[in-house]
Amino acid sequence: MKVLLPFTMCNNCDLKPVFKLKSGENLCKKCYLQYFEKKVRKTIRVHNLIDNNDKIGVAVSGGKDSLTVLDLLCSIYKENPKIKIQAILIDEGIKDYRDKSIETAKAFCKEKNVPLKIISYQEKFNFQLDDVVEGRNPCSVCGVLRRNLLNEAAIELGVTKLATGHNLDDEAQSILMNQFRKNVESSARMGPITGINDTEEFVRRIKPLYFMSEKEVMTYAFLKNIVDVFNECPYSNQSFRNSLRDLINKFEEQYPGSKNAVVHSFLEILPLLKDKHKTSSTLNKCKECGGPTSKDICQKCVVLGEIKPN
Amino acid sequence: MKVLLPFTMCNNCDLKPVFKLKSGENLCKKCYLQYFEKKVRKTIRVHNLIDNNDKIGVAVSGGKDSLTVLDLLCSIYKENPKIKIQAILIDEGIKDYRDKSIETAKAFCKEKNVPLKIISYQEKFNFQLDDVVEGRNPCSVCGVLRRNLLNEAAIELGVTKLATGHNLDDEAQSILMNQFRKNVESSARMGPITGINDTEEFVRRIKPLYFMSEKEVMTYAFLKNIVDVFNECPYSNQSFRNSLRDLINKFEEQYPGSKNAVVHSFLEILPLLKDKHKTSSTLNKCKECGGPTSKDICQKCVVLGEIKPN
Repeated sequence: MKVLLPFTMCNNCDLKPVFKLKSGENLCKKCYLQYFEKKVRKTIRVHNLIDNNDKIGVAVSGGKDSLTVLDLLCSIYKENPKIKIQAILIDEGIKDYRDKSIETAKAFCKEKNVPLKIISYQEKFNFQLDDVVEGRNPCSVCGVLRRNLLNEAAIELGVTKLATGHNLDDEAQSILMNQFRKNVESSARMGPITGINDTEEFVRRIKPLYFMSEKEVMTYAFLKNIVDVFNECPYSNQSFRNSLRDLINKFEEQYPGSKNAVVHSFLEILPLLKDKHKTSSTLNKCKECGGPTSKDICQKCVVLGEIKPN
Repeated sequence: MKVLLPFTMCNNCDLKPVFKLKSGENLCKKCYLQYFEKKVRKTIRVHNLIDNNDKIGVAVSGGKDSLTVLDLLCSIYKENPKIKIQAILIDEGIKDYRDKSIETAKAFCKEKNVPLKIISYQEKFNFQLDDVVEGRNPCSVCGVLRRNLLNEAAIELGVTKLATGHNLDDEAQSILMNQFRKNVESSARMGPITGINDTEEFVRRIKPLYFMSEKEVMTYAFLKNIVDVFNECPYSNQSFRNSLRDLINKFEEQYPGSKNAVVHSFLEILPLLKDKHKTSSTLNKCKECGGPTSKDICQKCVVLGEIKPN
């Protein structure tokens, strides 16, 4: 005879719940991990993130989001011989942060049996981020150089899709940031998968955690024991993004579902934005490095020129 | 010899300033009123709000926004014999609020020599809003019925454009409200002017104060002595809109220009939205009243059916 206990239990089985979904459902550890993986699988399927024969590069930082993506992709594709997985880490040269996260990433990749390619600013640009931050916004430098190195490495390694750990909260913040800064064109390059077709110049980026909230990813990472210490970049002081994060979180608390609504509203207009801005993205060759750019000189060379003027 | 005084003065003349623009410019009363009218004229011109031979219906409530629009349109078109102006007021039947604002509107229209047409729920629907609010959201009832009566009255009066007092703050709030509620299609009907072409069924609505902030409109109304008591609808308890208003205002304080950016970002995608949703707006005749609707029964008849079920 089944005894009805007066306290809450998992809605799928009789175990102790660890997470309450927005729908009100309570889930135990096992059912939560299943729910999470199922939702990521659906994202990949519905938005065509991954094709057969893809070699997926996972941009790992050693943090919870990127290792969660790697963990899931390994688990989803471990039995599929046609899909290959490769981890890529950019070492900007940030003392007491990157050195630690490199160790975490190395150990994780070893455990998962995934090759890890590490590329450093030092070897590529002959400086460390720590050396050039004075009087500069480190996030602007890093945003450009990191993206550039990831793309270059992906091409060299034969990677066909580059997966990042961006989650629902990141996307909702970016959508509003672009609106509050009147930067709509940037939004055309967002969404669960960038670009329209595969190109030789830019490896398409995919976001398997696109519909998972920050809280859900954090819970997954905790339950799977993926990272035990949350190690944050010392330069991460993006006050504008942080203000928006606080604002959206406060709103979500008052009106649950707001984050989801912002992202789904965006997805409704994204095809229109992509269509509008596709013609304006004819590619030139950068006059400095020959790399792809929509202008005369690519962003990487502009940033490097400011750091190391000849 | 001009003496340089150590305190701030109007940037255009030497008078005492009453308002500081976002650009930092200080303006005296006269220069502020000129600035305001010039910006509204520009909105009308750039967004083609008004054509020669238009008969403009102004939806007045007796509040600061709608009387400001009426004041400006009178001042802009007083010398133009081709443009006619007609005020329209909907009397929902709200004790201690509408009766007062009707007096304000009557006096103002008399002073401006503008004909005022008053239409009441009582004469049209045989009830007052006060009688039917129990257990209902009065704003939902009023939103539908008021819009319907305004459109009907405009058609009867030969009005070709219907001007409302919506300002920049209203629009920024509505844009985000639709996003936070995943209601993108509604946004396609927003902007400084609704619709694409003149139709027989719906008189196009225009918003001459579209780019003026709430604060700017309030200042204009004060300086022109348009309303001395700010009389607010007792049912105005739109918690969702109010939460968003607080949120945007807080953000604007921290990052000046945010409201403007939200509205201008929206204007960039508005043509895409209008284009996407134009095909879905084929009009039927309402099975109850014969009025225009995109469904079988129009919203007015749905609302009236709930209030007075047969």
